[in-house]
Amino acid sequence: MSVQDFDAWLATRCAHVEQALADSLPADAPAGLCDVMRYAVLGEGKRLRPLLVLATAEALGGLPDAALRAACAVEIIHAYSLVHDDLPCMDDDVLRRGQATAHVKFGEARALLAGDALQALAFELLTPAEAGGVPAAMQAGLCRLLAQAAGAAGMAGGQAIDLASVGRRLDVTQLRHMHQLKTGALLLGSVRLGRACALQPVSAPVWQALDNYGTAIGLAYQVVDDILDATVASEQLGKTAGKDAAQDKPTYVSLLGLAEARALAQRLRDQALQALDEGGINRESGHLHALADRLIHRNN
Amino acid sequence: MSVQDFDAWLATRCAHVEQALADSLPADAPAGLCDVMRYAVLGEGKRLRPLLVLATAEALGGLPDAALRAACAVEIIHAYSLVHDDLPCMDDDVLRRGQATAHVKFGEARALLAGDALQALAFELLTPAEAGGVPAAMQAGLCRLLAQAAGAAGMAGGQAIDLASVGRRLDVTQLRHMHQLKTGALLLGSVRLGRACALQPVSAPVWQALDNYGTAIGLAYQVVDDILDATVASEQLGKTAGKDAAQDKPTYVSLLGLAEARALAQRLRDQALQALDEGGINRESGHLHALADRLIHRNN
Repeated sequence: MSVQDFDAWLATRCAHVEQALADSLPADAPAGLCDVMRYAVLGEGKRLRPLLVLATAEALGGLPDAALRAACAVEIIHAYSLVHDDLPCMDDDVLRRGQATAHVKFGEARALLAGDALQALAFELLTPAEAGGVPAAMQAGLCRLLAQAAGAAGMAGGQAIDLASVGRRLDVTQLRHMHQLKTGALLLGSVRLGRACALQPVSAPVWQALDNYGTAIGLAYQVVDDILDATVASEQLGKTAGKDAAQDKPTYVSLLGLAEARALAQRLRDQALQALDEGGINRESGHLHALADRLIHRNN
Repeated sequence: MSVQDFDAWLATRCAHVEQALADSLPADAPAGLCDVMRYAVLGEGKRLRPLLVLATAEALGGLPDAALRAACAVEIIHAYSLVHDDLPCMDDDVLRRGQATAHVKFGEARALLAGDALQALAFELLTPAEAGGVPAAMQAGLCRLLAQAAGAAGMAGGQAIDLASVGRRLDVTQLRHMHQLKTGALLLGSVRLGRACALQPVSAPVWQALDNYGTAIGLAYQVVDDILDATVASEQLGKTAGKDAAQDKPTYVSLLGLAEARALAQRLRDQALQALDEGGINRESGHLHALADRLIHRNN
């Protein structure tokens, strides 16, 4: 696939996701809660998780309506996690996607509630009542996957480890475990959500290949994040740079050094592509390969 | 039904729910997150919402496994909402069910994350993967109802109104709207969850009767809460009493006076029982009547 073809795919899918997110968020909610929810979700996100859902579903001939719902649901979970993560009692951050964080703009209590309401909305999106849309078994399976990825054994658990690790010495194994939960669970979860949109049974090798791919890019994403945090200015990053070092949080860069962290990101990218090849997921026709490359070579 | 029979029913169902909650909560989660989650859920709750789910499901011959899962899920949502509601940026409360609130005991950040993980867990509980258990359509329907009850158009929205109402004058209509969302949505939601466990189609009159019953007791619960807050000491209440007045929050007692608030609670109890009669839901054999009475005549 040419770079132009991939860019065209990215542009149309991002536009679909933006529109679907805008349509999914309440236009009217009590006490202006919808304003906080919309602020937290709409705008400048990279939409990596939705793109992973869509690319995976498309590679398997998945149900488009289910994939778009899952794409929005996982992005809404991601957005709520950022709102809560930025709160004063967590990372206490003021800048996100180049703008004031939700609690700076709307106050802590409304940011907290908007995050809570967003999590509920994600599960509501996955379970539409209209007949003829997404099959009930698929709805239930998507809810299960999203709940597992977001909960104590996934994202929330990883955040708890992150919190407990401030000022402590972690080795690379412990750091990897933290990130596999904190960031990796929702990225692997995105691949799994896309896979769960398949209308035909997925063969065991393809199933495993997608899990391996999702695990590798989930970790690669965090390694690149650490590299960017250490090397790029806040303005370009859209969030406060150098924060991990300032808070004495362990990162791949602090543990491995910059050169070795870059090499690790490249190895994980290679592992992800190898997994796709092993599953016979075609390098030419799909978008999972190109997504892995973009993820490694992003600059924000 | 005799008081003894109802008490026996309450005791067995509460024991089932306690056991199921204990089994549902993670025994192992990163960085001690499971301790916070278990602390927030297990122990001294009245389990009113689970009892409503179970009583409704039993009145309709619902699927017991589904009802028990829904009962736990709604209680877990309720528990997470209390943890977040007690946070310093919200009600800033230190006492709950006669014990230190979660953030006092475990710190704000872990309390926040435990609440987030509990919300995810509720949806995970509703979507078990094992074949042969709860039908997928029922799983999806339960998720939809719980998400709607918990989200911006339900509990979270009501909390946003509550927050915005501090120090403002609300009239009874506005107060009622706030409580219909803040407390009422999850109580009505409990009745709806129980109804969704029915294995046979529910007739339109019974359907409507249960909605009317759930709406009436949802509101009655809050009126009684306001009465207790104004008349009972913190020790008996298990939470800080007189808090609403101290924060200049409008309550049914502050707007109507104590005598009229008591009369309103009794009228709502009568409406709830009348709804059951109109739906032909037998006063003798079921537990919904007795639950409505207990809810009005509770003392904590």
